[in-house]
Amino acid sequence: MDEKTAARAQAIHRRAEPDYRWEGVERLPYKEDDRALFKSVSRQILFSDPDLAGELRYFEVAPGGFSSLERHEHMHGVLILRGRGRCLVGTEVRAVDPNDLVTVPAWTWHQFRATTNEPLGFLCMVNATRDKPHLPTEAELAELKAKSEVAEFLGDASKQT
Amino acid sequence: MDEKTAARAQAIHRRAEPDYRWEGVERLPYKEDDRALFKSVSRQILFSDPDLAGELRYFEVAPGGFSSLERHEHMHGVLILRGRGRCLVGTEVRAVDPNDLVTVPAWTWHQFRATTNEPLGFLCMVNATRDKPHLPTEAELAELKAKSEVAEFLGDASKQT
Repeated sequence: MDEKTAARAQAIHRRAEPDYRWEGVERLPYKEDDRALFKSVSRQILFSDPDLAGELRYFEVAPGGFSSLERHEHMHGVLILRGRGRCLVGTEVRAVDPNDLVTVPAWTWHQFRATTNEPLGFLCMVNATRDKPHLPTEAELAELKAKSEVAEFLGDASKQT
Repeated sequence: MDEKTAARAQAIHRRAEPDYRWEGVERLPYKEDDRALFKSVSRQILFSDPDLAGELRYFEVAPGGFSSLERHEHMHGVLILRGRGRCLVGTEVRAVDPNDLVTVPAWTWHQFRATTNEPLGFLCMVNATRDKPHLPTEAELAELKAKSEVAEFLGDASKQT
């Protein structure tokens, strides 16, 4: 058994641990962004392998937190695993519940926000090879906020540019 | 808005429905295989898109049922979403619980079995472009069953060749 095979054999089964952590999966702790581009988001990479064209990650947004408002060429396939919140996709704001599916097409602005009383955790499938996210310019943010529902959703994130 | 954009706009948010079904997602009903290669498995394709290199599917095995014993070049990234059961990966048998991760490397025999009292539902990420599964020959099945734990796991599936 070569090294690669051995490493995989060990990783055949990774048990779920309490509070949406996983055996053998590094959890990037909650962190804050100085420019308030995101707030209280942690990330765990569940599947990433040279033999997989996609990656599966688990993101968790703490109560009251939010993911980056961004867009990019690659698309997202999201499944809500834990908690409740709202998401912005393009100029649509939706309330999301466990097991709901959210599709973020290419070049579409998006952000996930947890409710104030529980974390929002979601799986996100992406292409292993993908471009870097773009953040909104002031003009783009103003354009997004032209829709009152979006302005309300973004709330304090208006300070982000 | 062209047709493709319109179809996507409609599909930005697909709500979870009771019993692990999803709005707008076709559910292939439980079916039985005449040769007992699998038993009581349903499938729903959650994410499949020309812009995604991977696909995310939800499989559900009814109580007492089992997925095909098969192997193939493409690998699987599995997250248990519902219920409990056991899986075979190579010659390893593991008990699986909700949120557990199972990695099925290339060319590795695998099968999922639900417990007798609840369905076993799992997400499975695969490459969008992939080869077809291979079923075991009698010789391969005999080789697998040389390990008593595997023979016990396969149980009635011994009739499958």
